[in-house]
Amino acid sequence: MAKTAGILIIGNEVLSGKVTDQNSPYLVRELRALGVEVQRITTIPDDVSVIVEEVRALSARYDLVFTTGGIGPTHDDVTITAIAAAFGRLVVRHPALEEVLRQHYGQGITAAQLRMAEMPEGGRLVGEGDPSFPVVALENVYIFPGIPEVVRRKFERIRDQFRDRPFILRQVFLRCDEGQIADDLYAVLGRFPDLQLGSYPFIDKPEYTVILTLESKSPDYVEQALRFLLDRLSPDSVVRIE
Amino acid sequence: MAKTAGILIIGNEVLSGKVTDQNSPYLVRELRALGVEVQRITTIPDDVSVIVEEVRALSARYDLVFTTGGIGPTHDDVTITAIAAAFGRLVVRHPALEEVLRQHYGQGITAAQLRMAEMPEGGRLVGEGDPSFPVVALENVYIFPGIPEVVRRKFERIRDQFRDRPFILRQVFLRCDEGQIADDLYAVLGRFPDLQLGSYPFIDKPEYTVILTLESKSPDYVEQALRFLLDRLSPDSVVRIE
Repeated sequence: MAKTAGILIIGNEVLSGKVTDQNSPYLVRELRALGVEVQRITTIPDDVSVIVEEVRALSARYDLVFTTGGIGPTHDDVTITAIAAAFGRLVVRHPALEEVLRQHYGQGITAAQLRMAEMPEGGRLVGEGDPSFPVVALENVYIFPGIPEVVRRKFERIRDQFRDRPFILRQVFLRCDEGQIADDLYAVLGRFPDLQLGSYPFIDKPEYTVILTLESKSPDYVEQALRFLLDRLSPDSVVRIE
Repeated sequence: MAKTAGILIIGNEVLSGKVTDQNSPYLVRELRALGVEVQRITTIPDDVSVIVEEVRALSARYDLVFTTGGIGPTHDDVTITAIAAAFGRLVVRHPALEEVLRQHYGQGITAAQLRMAEMPEGGRLVGEGDPSFPVVALENVYIFPGIPEVVRRKFERIRDQFRDRPFILRQVFLRCDEGQIADDLYAVLGRFPDLQLGSYPFIDKPEYTVILTLESKSPDYVEQALRFLLDRLSPDSVVRIE
């Protein structure tokens, strides 16, 4: 079984169309490359009760949860409060984070700025190195801010700890109508029920009209399924195999 | 109260990082421009039981639900089956859709291709005009395919029926630290509790470091909140107002 993950994007700015979420496309690609299976991405508002409900559901359902957004000093930064509440924890100030903030802001630091040193009680700092970019985690929930550049910088520092057995992907590019091969795909799944088999039509590619994707964590299983599939498909329809 | 909406993206290809979802960014922008408030976007696999659970939850919670993906002739196209099941309906073949498909595919039409004439019993075709691109709806759920070009073509045909009172947006571009203005934002919300107030930091813009967004369906309310805010902010920090 692959490690599973859920991604929670927290931000009114995404739901109101002001900002296009770049974080879930990034995380999903990174996690897939690490062998982790993302099973859900949800985008919700900066609303404590909604975040609490969703963090509880995702944390119970998946091995790993990644949240982005709602970290900072202003009224709409409620993620830490909500994640603490989801696990029945208090919010505490972390001494090492407070030290980093005091060095950065100096004497004039405001109470709002000090909020960025807060974390759920029992939470932990993940990753080695630069303490100005710590990743806060609680249980199986990893908490990221919303700014894409910062998400990348932080995730790169901790990504290797999520590495699992990789997915093996083969792709078959076809020129045909999906409806002509539907029975063949059912036959493949009948024989290889654990295969992750995708069929994706395209209307804008001159070269092909369908891409089939065959995936599994077992290279042998994918190769056997690919041979079984190719034996059934009309060779005329196959443009190329990758 | 604004009309509310949930968006459900159905597709293993998004969750496995093969395809970046273009449909939710498109729908969210369009709906916002129409005055509809999107409150949740969820991406889930092509899995009947997961789709059933999610469609029920979204349909009960929001005024409108838009799904994309899982429409077509192959094994992974299970959206119609799942949405029918979510409402306890059978799947039936729609005569007008069947006619369109038979004209398109001719004598050699396959059973798989005819699946694209299926809809939940009690569903309806929405929108006027070109019958080759009907939008199928059941209750408050509008069902779209996954291909972005087709989603756009279909949505454009029916968008006007969702039009609500528009959101009025004002934006204040600032050069300051968010932590210095957090108290001012709380004060604005204390006085204007129904305001949608966003504060977004940027680390890559030479001109400004924060954008504040003020929104409401009442133009007067937004203008009053904007004046109240500007009276509190240091004029030196305001780069421009839009």
